[in-house]
Amino acid sequence: MVRWQPDTRARLQAAALELFVDRGYDETTAADIAEAAGVTERTFFRHFADKREVLFDGQQFFSKTFLDGIEAARPDEAPLAVVASALEGAATFFPDERREWSRGRQAIIDAHPALQERELLKLSGLAVEVAAALRDHGVAEPAATLAAQSCLTVFGVSFATWITHGETRPFAEIAHDTLAQLRTLAG
Amino acid sequence: MVRWQPDTRARLQAAALELFVDRGYDETTAADIAEAAGVTERTFFRHFADKREVLFDGQQFFSKTFLDGIEAARPDEAPLAVVASALEGAATFFPDERREWSRGRQAIIDAHPALQERELLKLSGLAVEVAAALRDHGVAEPAATLAAQSCLTVFGVSFATWITHGETRPFAEIAHDTLAQLRTLAG
Repeated sequence: MVRWQPDTRARLQAAALELFVDRGYDETTAADIAEAAGVTERTFFRHFADKREVLFDGQQFFSKTFLDGIEAARPDEAPLAVVASALEGAATFFPDERREWSRGRQAIIDAHPALQERELLKLSGLAVEVAAALRDHGVAEPAATLAAQSCLTVFGVSFATWITHGETRPFAEIAHDTLAQLRTLAG
Repeated sequence: MVRWQPDTRARLQAAALELFVDRGYDETTAADIAEAAGVTERTFFRHFADKREVLFDGQQFFSKTFLDGIEAARPDEAPLAVVASALEGAATFFPDERREWSRGRQAIIDAHPALQERELLKLSGLAVEVAAALRDHGVAEPAATLAAQSCLTVFGVSFATWITHGETRPFAEIAHDTLAQLRTLAG
């Protein structure tokens, strides 16, 4: 008989982050995480390939928020207006309830070069996906790649601001302001 | 008696690239490179820590070209004008004689995820250095980070264009045109 566990995945993620912060990422095993979440190690591995994946879970859904945002943009808009729409999409991935988790996750990544490399590769792949979506949306090259990279630039600065201690503005507002800042760089 | 070898380093790099292309990166050893360049393995290791370093050599000098460019900019210019100056600096690292080497190097990196990660980390570090130089130049945050990332965005697109087969325009001209494209994204 299998008990229905509505939030096993979320519970494993919360337990993992707590252990990573308290005990250290390197010192935490999948078995530790499973135990802290009150499930078997086998259940852990049904949800995640390894402990690293706990931090990088949801990548497809994360990418999709950008792509949905691009699809929602009008086809005749300027590239940066489509980027604004992509960032509005991305903001749905970062509700205020997620801020503490994101802060903890980022602190762990910042402390581990191998996780940083993983994160950089992930964001680099996302830029390629965003550029493809912009081309599908009618933006020609090299504007599509330039706009996609600019989207990731604004995303990165916005995310870093959003997780700053004491910051309370919602992600969407920060991203909107950061994109406005990007527009002023030309002077 | 030590024979003076004016270009041992450059000869090792040329020999390495040829072997990486012909035989494959994984299949080439430091000893193979030394032999092809007509030097001892010990000489190879006097110049490079390992075969990977042959591809990533000159990083400090590469970064310095951007920073010199920023220093050469007038202090009252708009952030993107300072970025233009950084890219003019970077262009000095990519004379036409280097184009074939850069093409070969990039093909090897593209084929090896571990080298791609190394390259991404390197460029990410460079963006941090460029942002610091922009702040020293009087650009406030978040404009400094946004402009530094934009600098790397334009650099990346320009470099990819520069090594395209059949492309003959000099790097500086491509970078100038790409930055102009970036300025048009706002519509």
